[in-house]
Amino acid sequence: MSLYSHILIIGCGLIGSSVARAARAYSLADTIAMADADADVIAQVKALGIADSVSTDARRLAAKADLILLCTPVGVMGEIAAHIMPVLKTGAVLSDVGSVKGAVIDAITPSLRGDVHFIPGHPIAGTENSGPEAGFSSLFNERYCILTPPGFDDETPAELSDIALNLQKFWQGMGSIVAVMSASRHDKVLATTSHVPHLLAFTLVSTAVDMERVTNNDVVKYSAGGFRDFTRIAASDPIMWRDIFLSNKTAVLEIVDRYIEDLSAIKRAIRWDEGDELVEKFSKTRNIRRDIIKAGQDISAPNFGRDEPSDI
Amino acid sequence: MSLYSHILIIGCGLIGSSVARAARAYSLADTIAMADADADVIAQVKALGIADSVSTDARRLAAKADLILLCTPVGVMGEIAAHIMPVLKTGAVLSDVGSVKGAVIDAITPSLRGDVHFIPGHPIAGTENSGPEAGFSSLFNERYCILTPPGFDDETPAELSDIALNLQKFWQGMGSIVAVMSASRHDKVLATTSHVPHLLAFTLVSTAVDMERVTNNDVVKYSAGGFRDFTRIAASDPIMWRDIFLSNKTAVLEIVDRYIEDLSAIKRAIRWDEGDELVEKFSKTRNIRRDIIKAGQDISAPNFGRDEPSDI
Repeated sequence: MSLYSHILIIGCGLIGSSVARAARAYSLADTIAMADADADVIAQVKALGIADSVSTDARRLAAKADLILLCTPVGVMGEIAAHIMPVLKTGAVLSDVGSVKGAVIDAITPSLRGDVHFIPGHPIAGTENSGPEAGFSSLFNERYCILTPPGFDDETPAELSDIALNLQKFWQGMGSIVAVMSASRHDKVLATTSHVPHLLAFTLVSTAVDMERVTNNDVVKYSAGGFRDFTRIAASDPIMWRDIFLSNKTAVLEIVDRYIEDLSAIKRAIRWDEGDELVEKFSKTRNIRRDIIKAGQDISAPNFGRDEPSDI
Repeated sequence: MSLYSHILIIGCGLIGSSVARAARAYSLADTIAMADADADVIAQVKALGIADSVSTDARRLAAKADLILLCTPVGVMGEIAAHIMPVLKTGAVLSDVGSVKGAVIDAITPSLRGDVHFIPGHPIAGTENSGPEAGFSSLFNERYCILTPPGFDDETPAELSDIALNLQKFWQGMGSIVAVMSASRHDKVLATTSHVPHLLAFTLVSTAVDMERVTNNDVVKYSAGGFRDFTRIAASDPIMWRDIFLSNKTAVLEIVDRYIEDLSAIKRAIRWDEGDELVEKFSKTRNIRRDIIKAGQDISAPNFGRDEPSDI
């Protein structure tokens, strides 16, 4: 028996389509319905054959669902939840994959019915590609998925309810390592490990293409010096990231301010030839990579393995 | 017949040891001598068997060399050049692999003999690993190598001398695509495509590990959200990068200032909910990645291919 009889995935991009493929591959649901407001996207989903039923109107598929997973940009999740809420069945589980949790909870709570279980979630997985064709079933393998059940207290963590445990099993079934924390803690941690890194990369690539003195052709040809790494992140979906920055504004702006302070201190050290201070700072940052590789969150091959080092 | 009879590589780190391996693999030199001031490094080079002769004193190996390649951090190149200059043979070619060209030229020129040919160079290749064991012969394959012959004028480029053409063949023999430009142009372009990206990555990783509210364990676990990409670059050699930032100070500080301005504008757009402006900026940055992949300077596989996407 699968974990869920009927699941409905709303939003059929990279994440939604990967969940559909993984749920099928690992037999986590009996039937999979998928909805997306974009008719072209729905046509692609049909062609891929990854759903049992599809619609451009999520509400038409929502009544039967045991698990509804919102996989859209976070900015529209409140509206979608309100739209489907009247038809959801009693005891249905509503979750999401949004990169911001506080704002999503604020947007969904006003329309939330007392007999629907809302358990927000966020898989820390993705690629720079977008759309249903970019998805693949192993996307969540060995990646963390954070659940933020309402009222969860980081200081005195309560046991998960059976309903939350089932959702945990769903993510574990797709290969994820599940972590549980409060929404506010999630938003602070992710601002550091994901939102601000993306913001800095978007900005650097944008600064570089705007430089009058350096042509875009130079930037392309000599990108292997470091720049190319930033362009991967800066190729991510613009709408998704607009929503993330706007809905985790407080944490993002706080860390960006801190970052600008630190960057100014390093600038000052360069200006005044304070080489020892630079070496001290740059030495500290090596260990964290070693830890990330040890934790299985990145590979140890140099250059992410992309240059296929080989001695002939 | 090889391009050079005797080559001497001074500095046996990632780049120096990769040149030694590639020169041997592609038969570009009859004999390869290697020097490094660090006795431990020389012991490693011996154990690797990648040189015909080794010494901790480059001067003892310099008299026979047709090509001398400085592969040390840029901050010590002037001193090393002055040390070996008296014993170099007439007609010897002196080159380097430094990431900064103006400062290296300034440091070497005072001791340069009139009968020694100095042709600065810079292969845009590397990994985050350091030391002789990190090198491999295919490192330069399909990567650009920039030569900055003295007096080269970007507006009215002259033909390369036979001596510079030979050095070009040497890099081409290791798989590189050779570009020629002035040292000042090189330093501006590389500040954008390499130096500032590294500075931003070092700073972000440093800011993150200093955050009191987020533990290093959080940063490690949830790094797949984007942060891990920055840690690769920030794991590069601290001494090498100190020297690069200090010796390309003007260009680096100028671009960092420009970057802080752009980051402040994006911060402001987030603070004032100017979503359209964010989408416009983030959309512009997608194309440049496509161009980099088309130019063969990065791979198209999502996540640099490191997650081995596979549908089961």
